Amino acid sequence: MAEPSRRERKAVERRLAILRTAAGVFRDRGYDSASMDEIAERLDMAKGNLYYYFSNKHELLFFCQDASLDALISGVDSIAALEEEPDEKLRRAVVAHVVCVLDELEGASAHTEVHSLPEDLRGRIIAKRDVYEARVRALVESGIASGALAPVDAKLATLALLGALNAPTRWYRPGGKLSPEAIGEEFASLFLDGLRHARPSIPSTRSTR
Amino acid sequence: MAEPSRRERKAVERRLAILRTAAGVFRDRGYDSASMDEIAERLDMAKGNLYYYFSNKHELLFFCQDASLDALISGVDSIAALEEEPDEKLRRAVVAHVVCVLDELEGASAHTEVHSLPEDLRGRIIAKRDVYEARVRALVESGIASGALAPVDAKLATLALLGALNAPTRWYRPGGKLSPEAIGEEFASLFLDGLRHARPSIPSTRSTR
Repeated sequence: MAEPSRRERKAVERRLAILRTAAGVFRDRGYDSASMDEIAERLDMAKGNLYYYFSNKHELLFFCQDASLDALISGVDSIAALEEEPDEKLRRAVVAHVVCVLDELEGASAHTEVHSLPEDLRGRIIAKRDVYEARVRALVESGIASGALAPVDAKLATLALLGALNAPTRWYRPGGKLSPEAIGEEFASLFLDGLRHARPSIPSTRSTR
Repeated sequence: MAEPSRRERKAVERRLAILRTAAGVFRDRGYDSASMDEIAERLDMAKGNLYYYFSNKHELLFFCQDASLDALISGVDSIAALEEEPDEKLRRAVVAHVVCVLDELEGASAHTEVHSLPEDLRGRIIAKRDVYEARVRALVESGIASGALAPVDAKLATLALLGALNAPTRWYRPGGKLSPEAIGEEFASLFLDGLRHARPSIPSTRSTR
């Protein structure tokens, strides 16, 4: 494959910068209320110029979700390839997910708003979301198979996990008390170790930490 | 307070039946695509009659969310009043939440779609959601105080928990393999006991079950 030219790389960077800003506007104003005018204004860009990159709000939302899922999938793939125990891989995947949805795309809660997309675009995002979900589930399954994780229902555990991991996009605001990494670490610990505290008086068949 | 008359009780029941059907239509079609026509049709009710109970789709969505939050709050209040250990209360609260959102209002994923509401109605739902969140958080805090739960960040743990508990409204379909109760029990066990399996070879300071 030929290396992308400098101009092509610039165009990709510009598109990503626009998506990041659009995601921020969607977060602050809600997708329905956000307008192309407002996004152009926040970018300090002529509206015509914005339309050169993205022809409408649906397209912006689609590419926000698409870029976010690409980043999530490539993150979980790198983690799966590491020489680590499955529970450690899962811990890293949880942190990577939270950092990705909160940090890299400015809290792109966008990525869960599939219902706002027209049907053809929605189908493509759902298909990619299913790919990501399958990768995370594979991590959980290999952890169960190796004995590092408890023999839970892997599908349900994955859905519970992803539900929890996407939730911070609803309440996280940049500059808050906790960084995306700190939230990710706390979530990883919650999911891996559970809420129930040590009970030394009761014989235990499962232990954590 | 005077007992409600038979006619008043009938009207309340009728309203709840309408909300349940509307929630089902919102779930199947998405809130944006659902129409009052379709809701009236599924109720086998004249559209004018539907408008007698609810004057528009926003009002239907508002009362779906409002009724769902009332049920959640009254559920967690009953559980908090029980003579049980805090971890057992939390287990019951998790199951009650999942059953409520999946069963009682036909999977009213509606309850998380606050952004579709006009601002004044949205504020009222968010205020009630904050009340519910505070009750669940109080359960977590009292569990930490009693030593039944690990010393986690109660606010973050509550938000993670509620994020996970609302997620099934996105994928649950009535008549699937798992009942709402079974999903609730699995979620409770995941959150209380964690995903990490027993590691008898490593000295443990926290144990579960």
